[in-house]
Amino acid sequence: MKRIAISVGDLNGIGIELALRNHHHLIQEVIPVYCIDSAMLNQAAKQLDIPIPDNFKTIEKIAEPFTIRPGSIDAKSGHYSYASFVKAVEMAREEEVDAIVTLPIHKKAWELAGISYKGHTDALRDIFDAKAIMMLGCPQMFVALFTEHIPLKDVAKSINQKDLTRFLIDFYLTAKPSGKVAVLGLNPHAGDDGVLGDEEFIIRQAIIGAHTAIGAEVFTCPLVPDIAFTPRIRAGYTHYVAMYHDQGLAPLKALYFDESINISLNLSILRTSVDHGTAFDIAYKGAQLSSQSYINAIRYIIDHKNS
Amino acid sequence: MKRIAISVGDLNGIGIELALRNHHHLIQEVIPVYCIDSAMLNQAAKQLDIPIPDNFKTIEKIAEPFTIRPGSIDAKSGHYSYASFVKAVEMAREEEVDAIVTLPIHKKAWELAGISYKGHTDALRDIFDAKAIMMLGCPQMFVALFTEHIPLKDVAKSINQKDLTRFLIDFYLTAKPSGKVAVLGLNPHAGDDGVLGDEEFIIRQAIIGAHTAIGAEVFTCPLVPDIAFTPRIRAGYTHYVAMYHDQGLAPLKALYFDESINISLNLSILRTSVDHGTAFDIAYKGAQLSSQSYINAIRYIIDHKNS
Repeated sequence: MKRIAISVGDLNGIGIELALRNHHHLIQEVIPVYCIDSAMLNQAAKQLDIPIPDNFKTIEKIAEPFTIRPGSIDAKSGHYSYASFVKAVEMAREEEVDAIVTLPIHKKAWELAGISYKGHTDALRDIFDAKAIMMLGCPQMFVALFTEHIPLKDVAKSINQKDLTRFLIDFYLTAKPSGKVAVLGLNPHAGDDGVLGDEEFIIRQAIIGAHTAIGAEVFTCPLVPDIAFTPRIRAGYTHYVAMYHDQGLAPLKALYFDESINISLNLSILRTSVDHGTAFDIAYKGAQLSSQSYINAIRYIIDHKNS
Repeated sequence: MKRIAISVGDLNGIGIELALRNHHHLIQEVIPVYCIDSAMLNQAAKQLDIPIPDNFKTIEKIAEPFTIRPGSIDAKSGHYSYASFVKAVEMAREEEVDAIVTLPIHKKAWELAGISYKGHTDALRDIFDAKAIMMLGCPQMFVALFTEHIPLKDVAKSINQKDLTRFLIDFYLTAKPSGKVAVLGLNPHAGDDGVLGDEEFIIRQAIIGAHTAIGAEVFTCPLVPDIAFTPRIRAGYTHYVAMYHDQGLAPLKALYFDESINISLNLSILRTSVDHGTAFDIAYKGAQLSSQSYINAIRYIIDHKNS
């Protein structure tokens, strides 16, 4: 069974409840280690009125304990969530675990705690000094993003052959898609032979370069973006490469919002995450939580072929 | 009952079969007039082996008759489909009908026939010298496009307050949405307060301008594009305004491909259309055709409040 370090996210949010409620499922298939001190766990479990499950393995001395205040943006909670994440990363680096799953942190709480990263992916890029690839999705559909958090006006100029070739190769080697991968064009109608934009020629060259390097034809020609996610087309693919954030994520989230996860590829460790936030508005309120994203984050690691 | 002129599209394609097969439904609710000569209708019906239904009203002298060759790209067929469209438009202009529905034409056949327009919408803009608004969708979700067939790199610079304000007002007056309208931001996370692009400030100003002109607050703030189509958000809206082609159409077609239609708003006539092509590969082959888009194109006219 694979060993997974789970960072608990912001303890004022819903992460720890997801961890507690799903533990009995998880231990059928993986060995989870929760990056939380037992004192903090006891405090959370008590506030949630959930008994701590058997074999819920924790780690001491993550960070200074603090008082959980459900739904609050709090520097101490921000600091703790960061420390929990760093511990999980360390364990993966030291190969004490096979991968990590991160529960949601609150960006503002990180900021209050003096942590300069915008989120987990950002931190991972810096820690590993590597071009992490951001992929989101669920078993029915994964979407990797060539450009991510940049203004739309900067997207077209970011499409260059060298970087895209490298991206496609790295993506192929780390996502390990089993079938053909759908690569999206940039422009409406994939440019209509250059009439509506010509970046598709660059994308095509990058695909040829990647195919040469890989030694197999794994990528499609640049697909017409608004047709690529229709039922007939998506039946043929599990993996997509989008040129920009909303091109890939708007259709993905329209189809598979609750079940989607966030995956960091192309690092020396594998990290998956739920694709939702701390949900401060419903934390510690006994609300019905959807565990689909969390379960899929674990599932991805179970199914992932080790390199 | 409303009177509708139906242009028959490229007779080498599936349009006429849709018209024949759905006529008995249509006449329960509308009065259709088909812009096709009886000789051409007889020829098509014979090739299709479908009896011509009762009350299938045709119009003579649309254009020169020609021999239907299923699936062929043909100048004569291109010319005929254009003439059928022009006739339907004339009838609407003369108020002989209340609206028109167009069946699919083949762009290349138009080109071979010496017709310079790329499609119906293009032609309508020229004929009426008006800023037609392109809206696609179905009763669950309609998406109007602020920019349409332009390269992605030109989208951001096309967002300007004057044009967008005018667009929003025209859209509101002609689409007549009953509830609040979802307006999308341009950038990932709707710009995250300017960190990922600042066109949302322009969009916001345009919305304020439109609200002042309309005298009611009908538009949302610029929504985060990749969240706007998730189940919880879309439950609140039937009408969206997208800043660019794939932003709106990729999620729409992921969710509602077969049932979507294309609507031309802001003209002195109302025109709806199926949102699929001539399907030359399955024309006249007795294939199972989906009539959903065609039926919805008719339905939109039935439900549309006259101005």
